[in-house]
Amino acid sequence: MFTYRADATAAQIEAIPRGLSRLPGLIPQIRRYEYGAGINPGNKDFVVVADFDSNADFVTYRDHPDHQAFIAECITPAVAERVAVQYLIS
Amino acid sequence: MFTYRADATAAQIEAIPRGLSRLPGLIPQIRRYEYGAGINPGNKDFVVVADFDSNADFVTYRDHPDHQAFIAECITPAVAERVAVQYLIS
Repeated sequence: MFTYRADATAAQIEAIPRGLSRLPGLIPQIRRYEYGAGINPGNKDFVVVADFDSNADFVTYRDHPDHQAFIAECITPAVAERVAVQYLIS
Repeated sequence: MFTYRADATAAQIEAIPRGLSRLPGLIPQIRRYEYGAGINPGNKDFVVVADFDSNADFVTYRDHPDHQAFIAECITPAVAERVAVQYLIS
């Protein structure tokens, strides 16, 4: 989940889903990839929900050059805080 | 996503998934309900990922007496922080 920077521009915010949309085509470990802006006040601004076959595949995604480039180009300029969790789907 | 209280007991922590497991049978608006403890250090402790047909159905779930009872019995005693977001699945 992300919280936008107070000075994040509309263009920076719009770049996030655009950047995310490219990743499933670049990172084969992604099994399911959903993301969207928060719709209720008082909660976080944006979220990504991603499924992988294993935690090892998640780590491959996390460290993948295209994911790291997306973070540098789209997340770092616009996001003040990121909170995350990975869990095993039973 | 939840962060446990520093003094949360193992029994209180184990009560969370047990309490969650009852909710889909009690709240018909729940379409998909996944939850689990975080598996990687440095991230949140627990997460619930739930799908609904509409934001209105989410609000019905959020305010449902059984959900509110679960919060009082299982979340309030064991959780220090809750962060959340709702988003539209395109």
